Amino acid sequence: MAKNAAVSLSVIKRLPRYYRFLGDLLQNGIHRISSKELAEIMNLTASQIRQDLNCFGGFGQQGYGYNVAALHSEIANILGLDSGFKTILLGAGNLGRAITTHMNFDEQGFHLVGVFDSSAQVVGTTVRDFVVQHTDALATFCGEYQPVAAILCVPKESATELVPKLIEYGVKAFWNFSHFDINAAQYPNVAVENVHLGDSMMTLSYQVKELISPTPKNQ
Amino acid sequence: MAKNAAVSLSVIKRLPRYYRFLGDLLQNGIHRISSKELAEIMNLTASQIRQDLNCFGGFGQQGYGYNVAALHSEIANILGLDSGFKTILLGAGNLGRAITTHMNFDEQGFHLVGVFDSSAQVVGTTVRDFVVQHTDALATFCGEYQPVAAILCVPKESATELVPKLIEYGVKAFWNFSHFDINAAQYPNVAVENVHLGDSMMTLSYQVKELISPTPKNQ
Repeated sequence: MAKNAAVSLSVIKRLPRYYRFLGDLLQNGIHRISSKELAEIMNLTASQIRQDLNCFGGFGQQGYGYNVAALHSEIANILGLDSGFKTILLGAGNLGRAITTHMNFDEQGFHLVGVFDSSAQVVGTTVRDFVVQHTDALATFCGEYQPVAAILCVPKESATELVPKLIEYGVKAFWNFSHFDINAAQYPNVAVENVHLGDSMMTLSYQVKELISPTPKNQ
Repeated sequence: MAKNAAVSLSVIKRLPRYYRFLGDLLQNGIHRISSKELAEIMNLTASQIRQDLNCFGGFGQQGYGYNVAALHSEIANILGLDSGFKTILLGAGNLGRAITTHMNFDEQGFHLVGVFDSSAQVVGTTVRDFVVQHTDALATFCGEYQPVAAILCVPKESATELVPKLIEYGVKAFWNFSHFDINAAQYPNVAVENVHLGDSMMTLSYQVKELISPTPKNQ
């Protein structure tokens, strides 16, 4: 049924949003929706939706619309949300602790297996149900548990040091909150999602500035 | 000097990354850099860099390169990083507390003036130097302090309720971590930066899945 081989990354990046909206519909007991109705809720055009979802074939039927549950579960399947990829988190400061407690790892493809920090004050404390371990223990831990993903909530300097080591230990994916830009060209077989919160805030600053006192247009 | 009137949002979105790299160079005592060297560090091409930075005119000189401090400060200026836009944060759970303590608001255009929550357990507790106030106090607070930006670390349902109210109270910008998609079409005079951490994680899940067991290519 699914003909998802040719799906582009730009479509993939839109799938989580479809998944969220379809999940909301299911929660509200809605099991069938037309592309027009879905378009309205999601602030897209019906033709955009048909184009995106046609990549996966067979879920929309003329005169019936989409089967919400089937589409929701097919998207979960494409994204690999039940994969439970073993994951470690590095940096148990404020942000790392928030990520550890806030995210629903297991519903989003990942399974957290360990939390690490290099600070003596933090090692040994508990976050959720994890006792924070020292980063010196990473090699042994990775040998034993073989985590495939790492979440970086560490300063830039630590990330610069840790990334090559973690790749050597078998880590294949980084969810990167550090200011270190992982060079995709240097590590072609590694998946990276960068979340630069500061960049996002600075972009918002520009937008507010332009709203309040727009830069004069050139002639 | 600056001819930034015609700068597109796609260039603007790249500026924070330039700003970070230039800041690193300054910290390392580097005051002058060629577009070729900067390109190498940032994993871009020299021509991309020249194209981006030419929008702001006059910082690159043939045979000299860029004046790092001047370019750094011009980008700060364009992004409005010294604006100190008065900002409130809503939702003092794990994520809200992490954002409050983790972000350098004042270096990124914003100045935090209040933290709010609707839960009786959280109201009255302290985050950084803020006593968490009840969301019922928002109207009065906004009347008095006139915050221009709001950070949403609340569940979707609360965000759905809070956004129209906050706009009525004069808020013009949202840094949105909630699952509520603020409809830009509905509020044309409002700036929004959405940070959907779950979407980012799901996109990474897809990438890991494709790395480990690629979807077979269609004939």
